[in-house]
Amino acid sequence: MWCQSCREEYEERDAGTCKECYEEASETEEELKREIDDLKSKVAFLRLASPHDLVSTTDLVLHASSSTSPSSPSNPNSSLCTTPAVPAHRAVLISRSPVFKAMLENEMEESRSGIIKIYDVSYDVLRSFVHYLYTAEVLLDEHMACDLLILAEKYQVKHLKIFCEKFMTSKVNSENAVASYAFAHRHNAKQLLEASLSLIMDNMATLTEREEYKELVEKDPRLVVEIYEAYLIRQVNTAAKDLTLQP
Amino acid sequence: MWCQSCREEYEERDAGTCKECYEEASETEEELKREIDDLKSKVAFLRLASPHDLVSTTDLVLHASSSTSPSSPSNPNSSLCTTPAVPAHRAVLISRSPVFKAMLENEMEESRSGIIKIYDVSYDVLRSFVHYLYTAEVLLDEHMACDLLILAEKYQVKHLKIFCEKFMTSKVNSENAVASYAFAHRHNAKQLLEASLSLIMDNMATLTEREEYKELVEKDPRLVVEIYEAYLIRQVNTAAKDLTLQP
Repeated sequence: MWCQSCREEYEERDAGTCKECYEEASETEEELKREIDDLKSKVAFLRLASPHDLVSTTDLVLHASSSTSPSSPSNPNSSLCTTPAVPAHRAVLISRSPVFKAMLENEMEESRSGIIKIYDVSYDVLRSFVHYLYTAEVLLDEHMACDLLILAEKYQVKHLKIFCEKFMTSKVNSENAVASYAFAHRHNAKQLLEASLSLIMDNMATLTEREEYKELVEKDPRLVVEIYEAYLIRQVNTAAKDLTLQP
Repeated sequence: MWCQSCREEYEERDAGTCKECYEEASETEEELKREIDDLKSKVAFLRLASPHDLVSTTDLVLHASSSTSPSSPSNPNSSLCTTPAVPAHRAVLISRSPVFKAMLENEMEESRSGIIKIYDVSYDVLRSFVHYLYTAEVLLDEHMACDLLILAEKYQVKHLKIFCEKFMTSKVNSENAVASYAFAHRHNAKQLLEASLSLIMDNMATLTEREEYKELVEKDPRLVVEIYEAYLIRQVNTAAKDLTLQP
């Protein structure tokens, strides 16, 4: 027989679908592609210009403060150092983040002054964050993904958090698995947590030699306990499966 | 053989694809569906809240004036009657429409006053228009599609124009084909023009009896000439094809 798709001959044992299903699948594919084109043009339409191109109409500014927040006493020696302002529109921040919405729709200091200070973040990260709120676009590297995920979590910008988490999950390897695991735990990133935990368990033999492991035992031993508990469950399940498979 | 998709038996002559192609197609379909989900969540993210929910941050208003524009002398007796204001943000109008961009980024009266008058449009249509600029969403009927297409053309909101044109094209029938054809001509709606012209040509026998045809001959005879020219080309092509097919 001849395959209608690749146009090559095949044996009966390599048969796939009947003609009707093949034609139906081709139609479905075309429909899905049309839907993708429609959605892409909708995304392009809904994307706002960058706030820098709309600067004459902005009605507030965000400042990146590279020190820790006053409410975080862990680093009391750092000074509050303010970088250039990032202009933005209240309407956009309100639409994208429930935290900004609460801040700007109520009579809070930020709403009155039109100045929002964002602590513990660099100017570049803040600019990328705001740019994403306008365009849903950002060029990620591992540092940027990490910093933006933290901001996205803080301001409840779910879409950006998922985007960064997907990127970080794609970058997990045996080298950074422990650090990723701790990070994922701290910032409620389930997908990243599962991927890094799975990789840690694949490399249990060398786990205790790792520097990050030793640090984690010091800093947050409960997280280490969770690794061992997950490993134990996996071992028990594997043993049970082996038993079932025995003749 | 058994089809791997519908699980039914088929004869050799009804064979579709080989197994490899079937599996590849299934993977492609899954990928396309994932892409659709990603794009849908991007659309949801980029959608702004309606301007009515952001009213405290709006920085201009649009007024629907149900009379003709002062520059259009065809209806000199109508009075300028202004309906309730539709609040909006300069930043959104600038992002969505090159016409609003030119108007608001230059020192034009609208930019200084923060008031934009939109002529020849009802309040409902204007509200839907502005709502679309924020959300890419609108509930269309034939009248709304027609009015919004005109606005979209005037303010160069290409995405909305395409959306309305698609809707109108899906509603063309032998009853409204002549009116649709004239409308499409007036507003550069190619897809609608082709669909309505094709339908007119399918019903040439009754064309000259139609009221809208008679009106069109009065108002814009060149458009009627174009119908006949297209019909002639079709007839010549059909005749040529028939000749080729003769034994």
